[in-house]
Amino acid sequence: MLDVIRAAGTISRAGLIEATGFTGATISTVVRRLIEDGLVRETGRAESTGGKPRVLLQLNQSACYAVGVHLDHAGIAYVLTDLAGSVVARMTRAGVGEDEPPAVVTRIAEEVRSLIEGAGIDTDRLLGLGLVAPGPLSAVGGMRLTPPSMRHWEDFPLDHALQQATGLPVVLDNDATAAALGEYWSGAVTGTSSFAAVYMYTGIGTGLLINGITYAGSSGNAGEIGHVCLDTAGPHCWCGARGCTESLAGPAAVVAAAREDAQLVRAAGLSDAHRPPSLAAEFAAIARAARRGEPAAHALLERSARYLAVAARTLANLMDLELLVLTGPSLAMADSIYLPAIQEELDRTFFARAAHPVTVRLSSLAATAPAIGAATMVLQSELVPLHQGLRLPDNLAAAAEESSSRVSG
Amino acid sequence: MLDVIRAAGTISRAGLIEATGFTGATISTVVRRLIEDGLVRETGRAESTGGKPRVLLQLNQSACYAVGVHLDHAGIAYVLTDLAGSVVARMTRAGVGEDEPPAVVTRIAEEVRSLIEGAGIDTDRLLGLGLVAPGPLSAVGGMRLTPPSMRHWEDFPLDHALQQATGLPVVLDNDATAAALGEYWSGAVTGTSSFAAVYMYTGIGTGLLINGITYAGSSGNAGEIGHVCLDTAGPHCWCGARGCTESLAGPAAVVAAAREDAQLVRAAGLSDAHRPPSLAAEFAAIARAARRGEPAAHALLERSARYLAVAARTLANLMDLELLVLTGPSLAMADSIYLPAIQEELDRTFFARAAHPVTVRLSSLAATAPAIGAATMVLQSELVPLHQGLRLPDNLAAAAEESSSRVSG
Repeated sequence: MLDVIRAAGTISRAGLIEATGFTGATISTVVRRLIEDGLVRETGRAESTGGKPRVLLQLNQSACYAVGVHLDHAGIAYVLTDLAGSVVARMTRAGVGEDEPPAVVTRIAEEVRSLIEGAGIDTDRLLGLGLVAPGPLSAVGGMRLTPPSMRHWEDFPLDHALQQATGLPVVLDNDATAAALGEYWSGAVTGTSSFAAVYMYTGIGTGLLINGITYAGSSGNAGEIGHVCLDTAGPHCWCGARGCTESLAGPAAVVAAAREDAQLVRAAGLSDAHRPPSLAAEFAAIARAARRGEPAAHALLERSARYLAVAARTLANLMDLELLVLTGPSLAMADSIYLPAIQEELDRTFFARAAHPVTVRLSSLAATAPAIGAATMVLQSELVPLHQGLRLPDNLAAAAEESSSRVSG
Repeated sequence: MLDVIRAAGTISRAGLIEATGFTGATISTVVRRLIEDGLVRETGRAESTGGKPRVLLQLNQSACYAVGVHLDHAGIAYVLTDLAGSVVARMTRAGVGEDEPPAVVTRIAEEVRSLIEGAGIDTDRLLGLGLVAPGPLSAVGGMRLTPPSMRHWEDFPLDHALQQATGLPVVLDNDATAAALGEYWSGAVTGTSSFAAVYMYTGIGTGLLINGITYAGSSGNAGEIGHVCLDTAGPHCWCGARGCTESLAGPAAVVAAAREDAQLVRAAGLSDAHRPPSLAAEFAAIARAARRGEPAAHALLERSARYLAVAARTLANLMDLELLVLTGPSLAMADSIYLPAIQEELDRTFFARAAHPVTVRLSSLAATAPAIGAATMVLQSELVPLHQGLRLPDNLAAAAEESSSRVSG
């Protein structure tokens, strides 16, 4: 219900009945409770269309907030969003690198504190913290089967440690899934509620949204487009299989191939070995070289894009997709190569192309979508129980009510 | 609601409240309407557990029926199911072969009539007819982008022609999707409501069920595992792409490879060229030869199974599956080769194997699952509107009521 109100901006009770299919009595009850809890407020009347003017409802955006954290080897992005998923504050800090997990958790807690203080938000209004990261995660516990660069995070009880350090409820999920949710909540994707977001940073993943709800699979690990097989006799992948998209076309494969070309290493400035090289920075350097017209850099990214295009077609054929959003820093850096390659492949070989095309486009918020998605996961996981007759925790209800009366009073 | 009652066998109103999360008032209203419509009846009381004994509800199975038709190049399977999806009558007739669509529709209408008459069911109790077929279908209209053997069906207005010929509402869908639904409704799959059914007959497809509901994609064409790319430099497929599962490992590829081996052609009895060879029959002959220990036949199926296993892993990695059911006549004929190959591949290389395994098993109703699924699609599409406050058509309501009072009276 909150999601319908959020998506509509303002909506009448009659509009809610139409949008949800619930009865008037049910809508009445739920709206009354949402207003009591301070999450929704009445906001004037719609123009009369013959009958009496209808009272409009809208989210009380400042009723509560959520923190979204996108953790990666190369960087940690933070956002603070309000109840509508709008970004109130954001910041980016150094990646986790080789640091030990407990030290990173301590740092995250401090950085979250400064994010909240900087925004001037009362901590009573915080619903919780969503943290998203690459690779398989279990909903409780931490990361599983991590990529090589984050192997030391495996089996670290991330949710528990973060909850202890921040005092906030913690939700964990995959960064690609969060990216899809971020696209949807931020209003960047409209007109369809089912799509896939292909996310590339240091790895490649996909977030799947079906009717506005993330499809996570049986253990939260759906959408592993980086581990789609493109060549049964291809190179061995760290995941245990052969010929995976990631091993043929991922940033690590692109950077490894570039490092074999001495001229390209010089041209792209890859040889700066003073400090441990960062995969994300090296991929970005190759993308910049390609944009400057360096043919070897262009050819490597073209090859990567063609493989990713075939993997995208496999995904589109299995899910019968209408829309594919390209997101994540690495795709955003090289969209002029990846986007046309993927669109061309789908136009030519998508199985159901006689029924409909698959539209491919670049996200307008490629860098922050996962962190926004992480925050909206908190909103969803903490607010959905309200539908089932549960109430807000007392501190939140009090804070929300106060905020509501302040705004409307 | 009907699905919950069906799955439970018998259930009290309190049980329904628990299972659906709806309020007591909503359950009361809906159950009263279902009883008035004759779809559900009261059936004694549960043993008291302290409070007063609870009235149990169950489906009035004989309130209405649906016809399921599974149309394929090689055979047409018919089933008649009751409201609970239980098969009341079944039969199999010749495939569509090279026949012209209008002639096939006329024949289907006659065969459906004899199915219904044979079962002694009043046509007033028929909700409709579900027809499923290989390859992309549009919900209205007919087949699109058909496999070569059924190219002449493209753009034939199948639903309209069938509706005219049978006088029944018609629902069209993909055979693999129907197979998954058939597995679920027939009770063959329990303990999970999300799984994929890999279906192989003359083509290869997958039906996806998420929380008991088929995932059809944006145009009903999800699950095209036959058109997952396993080798970007592989053979050209009829779909326009290269290296598809179907072109490397499908029945047509297996039969074509067998025909190049003169000794195997003799051993498997493939050389009977008196009439146009049927792909399904030829694949079956190779499967029988493999079972007799013919090494060349065994090697061909092993190769096919290894490719299908890699495609199954791609599907499992994208959907994060827990269960894969192998179904369809071709997989049922050669399960001793396909099942272990797919299970071994998933045990070894499924991406999230550290989180959970993927169980692979053979359907116990591989030949009839698509037809059962076709019939249950009718039950779903015709009965779901009841949830939204619509009523049964008068003829059905009268028939159902009569049946209900006869059973309970």
